[in-house]
Amino acid sequence: MSKVTEDVQTKQTVQERLEEQLRAVAHIGHVEIGVTKFEDSLWFYTDVLGLVLSEKEEGRAYLRAWQDFDHYTLVLQESEKSEVNRMSWRVASEEALDLFEKYLKDTGIDVERIEAGQKKALGDTLHFKSPSGLPIELYWEKELFETDDPQLKSKLPSHPSKSHLKGVSPRRFDHVNIMVNDVKQEQEWWTDLLGIHHRYFVQNKEDERLGSWLSKTNIAHEVAFMRNANQNGAAFHHLAYFLDSPDELVRAANIMAENGIEIEWGPGKHGTSGAQFIYVFEPSGHRVELWTGGFLIFSPDWKPIEWKSDVGELGMEMWGSNPPETYYTYGVDIGE
Amino acid sequence: MSKVTEDVQTKQTVQERLEEQLRAVAHIGHVEIGVTKFEDSLWFYTDVLGLVLSEKEEGRAYLRAWQDFDHYTLVLQESEKSEVNRMSWRVASEEALDLFEKYLKDTGIDVERIEAGQKKALGDTLHFKSPSGLPIELYWEKELFETDDPQLKSKLPSHPSKSHLKGVSPRRFDHVNIMVNDVKQEQEWWTDLLGIHHRYFVQNKEDERLGSWLSKTNIAHEVAFMRNANQNGAAFHHLAYFLDSPDELVRAANIMAENGIEIEWGPGKHGTSGAQFIYVFEPSGHRVELWTGGFLIFSPDWKPIEWKSDVGELGMEMWGSNPPETYYTYGVDIGE
Amino acid sequence: MSKVTEDVQTKQTVQERLEEQLRAVAHIGHVEIGVTKFEDSLWFYTDVLGLVLSEKEEGRAYLRAWQDFDHYTLVLQESEKSEVNRMSWRVASEEALDLFEKYLKDTGIDVERIEAGQKKALGDTLHFKSPSGLPIELYWEKELFETDDPQLKSKLPSHPSKSHLKGVSPRRFDHVNIMVNDVKQEQEWWTDLLGIHHRYFVQNKEDERLGSWLSKTNIAHEVAFMRNANQNGAAFHHLAYFLDSPDELVRAANIMAENGIEIEWGPGKHGTSGAQFIYVFEPSGHRVELWTGGFLIFSPDWKPIEWKSDVGELGMEMWGSNPPETYYTYGVDIGE
Amino acid sequence: MSKVTEDVQTKQTVQERLEEQLRAVAHIGHVEIGVTKFEDSLWFYTDVLGLVLSEKEEGRAYLRAWQDFDHYTLVLQESEKSEVNRMSWRVASEEALDLFEKYLKDTGIDVERIEAGQKKALGDTLHFKSPSGLPIELYWEKELFETDDPQLKSKLPSHPSKSHLKGVSPRRFDHVNIMVNDVKQEQEWWTDLLGIHHRYFVQNKEDERLGSWLSKTNIAHEVAFMRNANQNGAAFHHLAYFLDSPDELVRAANIMAENGIEIEWGPGKHGTSGAQFIYVFEPSGHRVELWTGGFLIFSPDWKPIEWKSDVGELGMEMWGSNPPETYYTYGVDIGE
Repeated sequence: MSKVTEDVQTKQTVQERLEEQLRAVAHIGHVEIGVTKFEDSLWFYTDVLGLVLSEKEEGRAYLRAWQDFDHYTLVLQESEKSEVNRMSWRVASEEALDLFEKYLKDTGIDVERIEAGQKKALGDTLHFKSPSGLPIELYWEKELFETDDPQLKSKLPSHPSKSHLKGVSPRRFDHVNIMVNDVKQEQEWWTDLLGIHHRYFVQNKEDERLGSWLSKTNIAHEVAFMRNANQNGAAFHHLAYFLDSPDELVRAANIMAENGIEIEWGPGKHGTSGAQFIYVFEPSGHRVELWTGGFLIFSPDWKPIEWKSDVGELGMEMWGSNPPETYYTYGVDIGE
Repeated sequence: MSKVTEDVQTKQTVQERLEEQLRAVAHIGHVEIGVTKFEDSLWFYTDVLGLVLSEKEEGRAYLRAWQDFDHYTLVLQESEKSEVNRMSWRVASEEALDLFEKYLKDTGIDVERIEAGQKKALGDTLHFKSPSGLPIELYWEKELFETDDPQLKSKLPSHPSKSHLKGVSPRRFDHVNIMVNDVKQEQEWWTDLLGIHHRYFVQNKEDERLGSWLSKTNIAHEVAFMRNANQNGAAFHHLAYFLDSPDELVRAANIMAENGIEIEWGPGKHGTSGAQFIYVFEPSGHRVELWTGGFLIFSPDWKPIEWKSDVGELGMEMWGSNPPETYYTYGVDIGE
Repeated sequence: MSKVTEDVQTKQTVQERLEEQLRAVAHIGHVEIGVTKFEDSLWFYTDVLGLVLSEKEEGRAYLRAWQDFDHYTLVLQESEKSEVNRMSWRVASEEALDLFEKYLKDTGIDVERIEAGQKKALGDTLHFKSPSGLPIELYWEKELFETDDPQLKSKLPSHPSKSHLKGVSPRRFDHVNIMVNDVKQEQEWWTDLLGIHHRYFVQNKEDERLGSWLSKTNIAHEVAFMRNANQNGAAFHHLAYFLDSPDELVRAANIMAENGIEIEWGPGKHGTSGAQFIYVFEPSGHRVELWTGGFLIFSPDWKPIEWKSDVGELGMEMWGSNPPETYYTYGVDIGE
Repeated sequence: MSKVTEDVQTKQTVQERLEEQLRAVAHIGHVEIGVTKFEDSLWFYTDVLGLVLSEKEEGRAYLRAWQDFDHYTLVLQESEKSEVNRMSWRVASEEALDLFEKYLKDTGIDVERIEAGQKKALGDTLHFKSPSGLPIELYWEKELFETDDPQLKSKLPSHPSKSHLKGVSPRRFDHVNIMVNDVKQEQEWWTDLLGIHHRYFVQNKEDERLGSWLSKTNIAHEVAFMRNANQNGAAFHHLAYFLDSPDELVRAANIMAENGIEIEWGPGKHGTSGAQFIYVFEPSGHRVELWTGGFLIFSPDWKPIEWKSDVGELGMEMWGSNPPETYYTYGVDIGE
């Protein structure tokens, strides 16, 4: 007798199992950040990083990489302090949004439903917070990017806009990373509640969790949590865009150097993911990662890779460079 | 009233919906091919392409790329003719295998269950054929690759074996491509029955389907069907391994040239996927593709991109090179 | 008794030998071309190719790559037909210019001295023609590029202007290529008279010379001659700029495709030089090559590499692609 | 009246000028090093770095990169201490060797002539020392590399041996770097006596010379001198091989990591030359650099680029990483 047959012996169980199956996140969608130097940051994201400006309003800009199919993957909001305001994930179906709302409420989590039309290009969304206070958003509907601008429109149907127009010109939005006090607790909540798979983690000599990387899709991670060395709560560590090759990463580093943008660390290579990286600080103080390579994870029963302390340094950087002190201590605030 | 609520009004419906959800393929796993020149092909796959030989038996070899986590992704079988014997996919759970068996039988498809132990490193598998006669295999259990050989074992837990040991050394197995008479029919069967999503397709001037590319995971495609210009049935077009950069592709082309391996086409760039490629013929006559780049697809409601005839050539190759005649006519047999 | 001692037994011989030593070309400097579509070509060279516009006059533009130290390496002249007007080489010293003038006259070659101030950024120059009628210029003085424009000026003293500002952004000017009826004759004249070393050559089955590549510096060639398949005289085949990597070449091909610029051939790899290439046609019909890699030649007694007909195709393209018909037949005129 | 005419008014002057012209170095040829762990170093240079072993004798190995045309560019000598034994340069003609011998003696430098046959693959050589005690060799004749080994021989006449056979597989030997107490003095001696051009230099805040880079050919440098922070005399800093792209450099770093070879610094980018680099320590303690990119210098009247202290750090590394302490203090001995 198969597991299904067993389960379906009571209607309740079958429905619960079905709801569990349907209550699924699809992928990370975008991140909203507050920036103190709006125009300077906008210059960085468009001219230096080479993102496409989808739309601009007073004190607000919507941006995307050339092959992000969505209307935007990054929102800049002029702000009194640099902070992260929202990390948004698409759910797997319209049904999933309702199921999450119900489930979150049942679980005792304070969830707010924002109706379609309130947020640019989005249908209904759910707002709620993780144990560390991270502002999460779930949505089902989001407009795709479309343009008739001949400077921007590609003749290739696979290109929502032309590639390589200026600056670094990354291919797509990749992930976010947040420092928290308790990595293990945060990771387990995301995995248990949202079904975001745990991919790999690093332990220190005291067998404390230094970092955990998670994804729902096949990419190595869409969200990561790293231990805040200050132990003073959560802080936004970085957002990341993806490049096609190590060579493009080197080109990106050159462009940063030519434009006076500080490279905090890199080029280096994370042993954990196998991705090559640079980290830079944009004018408002956000850390931005450009990265390339890394593995994809296809296994449906993936066992998180443990990086014990004896190889933890290789995990952080396998070529031998050490992260600067700031890498473990500096982040921007988590917005209200 | 949500769709779930509606559905669950009858126990039957809920169970059916649950089974439909659970009856899922996870990803392509490996391909088994017959080769007429076993030792020459083995030299090609190990010394030139640089795959790792996991295991070798009389007239049979199991191979994988350095970051393929599984025991193998390619099986060579000494054979009287070069052919494809099996294209194997992992399902999403043990339950899924049973559900597929039941469903395939219910649908009237002839399915054979091969018990664990019959096939190297695999648990139970299901064997059946597509409308064009392609030999498909589904499985849940497959051993991971492990080694204690100091020449092969990496100190990085993320590397099942050392990278860059010799030859081209691709990162991972990627996809298969088969020529069939009726692309549309074949694609629809795979999408409807196996849930492999349709990603993009090319139409000719007569609005016939020239090619369709499908995947279950986020990569652009795991299986493709192209119209057999000879219209004489199905033929195996190629298998593909993935490289990390255009630069590695150039290096691969150099290695082919130094080793007297004919490059049929490339380096070129498919406009459809955005992936750069070369196609070569290995000693037994199989076409092997090396490719890099290309987009990932995250959207749960992805609408297949149509390449109409006016941009179809860009879709096949966006830099302007034309595929040789053989590309549309040559393939090896489909095994019994 | 050393060779020097022998030679110096007559004053005449020593002076002749000294003059021969001093009468030296240093390197190719720039090329002047006529373009029928001035504004379109200017768009191509600045926005697509990403050269820096040093200076613009009515119907004339001076351009350079970001690390060309000279004021310009390419001159566009609005013209009734697309043609090459001048191929200019720097001599090794001021003295060398005078010695060439004297020597060319002694040899019976019609040479014109253009005084400083007549040509942009140049001191005195010598104008004369090769046996095939190619318009050659020699000069000693040429202004270096300097800028105070903060958008353009790099803080790196090694960068005359910022790198990677837009488009392809090649590093430097590389070479020119001309089709002539008699390759061997033309090559020997350049080697004998101007001291430009013969580096490698391709013979056909009839043992006719199909191409010869020459340089004075360590790069594989600064000028090449290829057999005009039409045998109707000399024609300008292409000018070339240098990129830093195969990856940048792929990026260049993408940029061409996005901008509707036809790629005639490539990416491919010349076996002769080992350089990877693409050839494109700019709006006025000039063929432009972008290339990367290739060997340097350090040996002072280099023996030209012969590519016999059995490996001649590998010499032209070692990955197996064939040049299109146009590659052997199309060129623009040689200016008066 | 031209300068030549003036000079030739006395026979002596003309002959002196001619001799000065002819007394020329062509390029750096090879370096001989002593290694304490002969077999381990040989493993590193062949299996990890991927040089070709041209010839091996008891305690001595001759090595070259795949496109080094000479019989060897590196000599390993089993030794009680790791040291540099000889840095060898080819002169521009046979005559030049005699002229250097005479000139060095006239200048009061102790020079020893080693007859052909004494040293592997070399004709007569001259041995002498620089002011800092560096062991220099000049030679005219050196055998080219030739092979009939089908595993090694390429069908491309431009490839003395097959490329990409194993390991990193750099294209060619590039340069050497030595720490000395007085950089300025050493540089001026090489420029004045041997005619090796001064290309760029870095000054510290006290306006002391921290480093000078020199070349006779068009590459950015063939020999460099850096200030020994210990001020305890000369020490051999590193030898370098050239790669074709930043991507190959990343691949090299991966290969080092997989093989347990320590990367001291990099990937980084020298602002001075624009070359990307990694530095590693081979088993006997020699520092080896792999580098790629960088500019070529064509100008016959090149003015050395000064990197003042305000941009000196950018000169050393333009992406922002700092060299480790060892980079300024560690080197191996200068052999007797």
